[in-house]
Amino acid sequence: MKKENFSEWYTWAVDKANLSDKRYPIKGMNVWTTYGWKVMRLIDEHIRSEFDATEHGEVHFPLLIAENEFAKEAEHIKGFDEQVYWVTHAGDNLLDVKLLLRPTSETAIYPMFSLWIRSHADLPMKIYQIVNTFRYETKQTRSFIRVREIHFFEAHTCHAAFEDSERQIKEDLEIMERFAKKLCLPFLLCKRPEWDKFPGAFYTIGIDALMPTGKTLQLGSIHQYRDNFSKPYNIMYEDETGEHKYVHQTTFGMSERLLGAVIGIHGDDRGIILPPQIAPYQVVIVPILSKTVKEEILLEAESILNELLDANFRVHLDDRDIRPGSKYYDWESKGVPLRIEIGEQEMREGEITLSRRDTSEKKKVLKVDLIKEVADHLKKIEENLLKEAARKLEEGIINDLTGEKILRLGWCGKEDCAHEIENRTDKDILGPLAPKEDFKGKCVICGKETDIVVYAAKTY
Amino acid sequence: MKKENFSEWYTWAVDKANLSDKRYPIKGMNVWTTYGWKVMRLIDEHIRSEFDATEHGEVHFPLLIAENEFAKEAEHIKGFDEQVYWVTHAGDNLLDVKLLLRPTSETAIYPMFSLWIRSHADLPMKIYQIVNTFRYETKQTRSFIRVREIHFFEAHTCHAAFEDSERQIKEDLEIMERFAKKLCLPFLLCKRPEWDKFPGAFYTIGIDALMPTGKTLQLGSIHQYRDNFSKPYNIMYEDETGEHKYVHQTTFGMSERLLGAVIGIHGDDRGIILPPQIAPYQVVIVPILSKTVKEEILLEAESILNELLDANFRVHLDDRDIRPGSKYYDWESKGVPLRIEIGEQEMREGEITLSRRDTSEKKKVLKVDLIKEVADHLKKIEENLLKEAARKLEEGIINDLTGEKILRLGWCGKEDCAHEIENRTDKDILGPLAPKEDFKGKCVICGKETDIVVYAAKTY
Repeated sequence: MKKENFSEWYTWAVDKANLSDKRYPIKGMNVWTTYGWKVMRLIDEHIRSEFDATEHGEVHFPLLIAENEFAKEAEHIKGFDEQVYWVTHAGDNLLDVKLLLRPTSETAIYPMFSLWIRSHADLPMKIYQIVNTFRYETKQTRSFIRVREIHFFEAHTCHAAFEDSERQIKEDLEIMERFAKKLCLPFLLCKRPEWDKFPGAFYTIGIDALMPTGKTLQLGSIHQYRDNFSKPYNIMYEDETGEHKYVHQTTFGMSERLLGAVIGIHGDDRGIILPPQIAPYQVVIVPILSKTVKEEILLEAESILNELLDANFRVHLDDRDIRPGSKYYDWESKGVPLRIEIGEQEMREGEITLSRRDTSEKKKVLKVDLIKEVADHLKKIEENLLKEAARKLEEGIINDLTGEKILRLGWCGKEDCAHEIENRTDKDILGPLAPKEDFKGKCVICGKETDIVVYAAKTY
Repeated sequence: MKKENFSEWYTWAVDKANLSDKRYPIKGMNVWTTYGWKVMRLIDEHIRSEFDATEHGEVHFPLLIAENEFAKEAEHIKGFDEQVYWVTHAGDNLLDVKLLLRPTSETAIYPMFSLWIRSHADLPMKIYQIVNTFRYETKQTRSFIRVREIHFFEAHTCHAAFEDSERQIKEDLEIMERFAKKLCLPFLLCKRPEWDKFPGAFYTIGIDALMPTGKTLQLGSIHQYRDNFSKPYNIMYEDETGEHKYVHQTTFGMSERLLGAVIGIHGDDRGIILPPQIAPYQVVIVPILSKTVKEEILLEAESILNELLDANFRVHLDDRDIRPGSKYYDWESKGVPLRIEIGEQEMREGEITLSRRDTSEKKKVLKVDLIKEVADHLKKIEENLLKEAARKLEEGIINDLTGEKILRLGWCGKEDCAHEIENRTDKDILGPLAPKEDFKGKCVICGKETDIVVYAAKTY
């Protein structure tokens, strides 16, 4: 079913796990249900721990931006103009200055940077926020992948010199490497071509995951702004010699698409599969009750529950009065990575059965080894999810002009040839890898010798 | 200074602690700086733990509400009509249906309740969310106390019978009791008079704190809706006999005003004082370096830091190269409840000095007792902050028609007499306590015998 019609499967899997409800009366603005929000909050906590550890301070800026602030950087406004929601009235009053719902927060944050930054001692300034952003999407919406209210992460940094901001981008790439592992998501880092960079950026690195359809999903992006924004927003510092200079800036953005990728890449015909580090329940305990020893089994299940809770696992005991098979089905569709079954036989033998969501493997282990076995199993599940996804990404790339895959093609560097690639393949240029990979070959269009190789794919 | 001009002091204290920046280009929409946001997030985590523990599920609803959904409950729209921000355009397009920024989320959530609730087995349904809400305030704005973008908590519950929803309100009052203790905030629960209840409510209980000015600040409110909303929003369930009935609903709302109350009630002329449970740093360590033993003292300070971190205290070692006095000043204005000083003498004697932010008391204790002493001190600070605040609230109430305090007055129950109280005192009726207190006396206006006693105050 996932293989046959991914799009239908995706909708089904999101519904089945009850991650989001898209029946809200405004199209493309979905309700985060309790389970979906728990997963997203766990993802957010991993983001926070990465950015706190690298000395970014969390802030929270207002949602609304005044039109005159928004209009200061010409490229930026051109890029977002058609996508912004405008607040024009409050009560019965027409507002003097129109306000817009942030599509991203450069134009909200940078007027404050110009107040906060005075001297080189204030630099680097590194902040981030996790907020709702808004884009008036005209394409078809899809939960987590294309929505009009977006759960969004954005880091903004200011540096004295261009080289400092380049070092920040290196740090961002290291953060992404560590963070994506927790979600078991492999990705490509592609330096976007000039015509596809973020409005106002000096350059943009896209973070692309491969979905089962062969289309790539941009999970986030890292932008080098140089002084493109600090000039119009007048963000200056006084250096050691008393000279006033513009700061160099970077941003790093990611969104709820992370969850969309987790669903699409790891899920199977039984529903979603959650990597252990973002699963609201890492383990579910299902007691297999028999009439004769019902009480003892429940007590045993509770002792397992308490032991796991004490060891800081996220665990749930499902003691509902329904058949074990129905419970298996429920928790499988909710993507719980590990199930513990405890029945009469297991109890008699001091054992429990561990059942993996990713491979469906079952294993009997001694109850005395509970903590160690659960930790081992979760580790293995995590490794397997990442390995499988990495294999799919690797197999999803071909050195060819055709195929429902990511194409890897020599390119001379001329814009004409790039557009010709896009026309012939009906795909978008993602760009060359960042950092640049070694290559010697010919441009697939004009045949010129080149050391540039670009990736192209259909994109979400 | 706090006593002489509270309003100026408040602005100064917020600035000094760097909790919020109100220089954002839109008036009344302030920037949460890193420190302020950390405090608010700690407050939020306490809210979450209370509501998770009482089986409320956290959700996250869209910000925007369609005009037609908003208009379904007549009283509600009347109450909010003049305060809502309207989104009328997206890009260049005029929207078919105007959208509003939620001032509160009844009209966003209840259309979904009508889809989610089918049978008595779905009840009670208890959810909450922590989101940004918007009100176009025309009065003067003030950080955390009166703002136009509000950091807001709201719980919404649905029940089969009215009695069930009444039990929910009892649970809410218990939650408030436990939660406010963590913030060291005493409060009055007043059942608002008919003319001042929440638009659409059957009744409203206001949660009022007393600020040093003698004015009360409403921290939150609990509403009994009965079936006032379930009828227009068609939220019905099938009971055990197959009959279809409207649910009974309650809500519980609180906002960033909690932080405003913490600042105003606990602070002193040196700045804010944070209750230990919401302090980003509960303890700051200041090494008093002497030239001869600088290294040893720093090592000692680090060992204290690590010991406290291991014991799960939020602690910071201030090893900046500035005078200890400047450090004291900084952390005092940031409200850190406990300071540890470690100098040459202390080190030689295996001691540390603990300095309390609330009372300025200093005490030398043995370093071997570090964990126990820190825990004891934080406990005492918490108790003292609550006790002091409770005393001020008690002293802030008088049985009289005049005075810059909360007035406690006999009232016959007639609206005319209540308005006469308001006119004569230039204060607002907060209402009688909930649950009702014992009273025998006379109406302060008409002299009629009554068992109702109401509270009246100037309010923020």
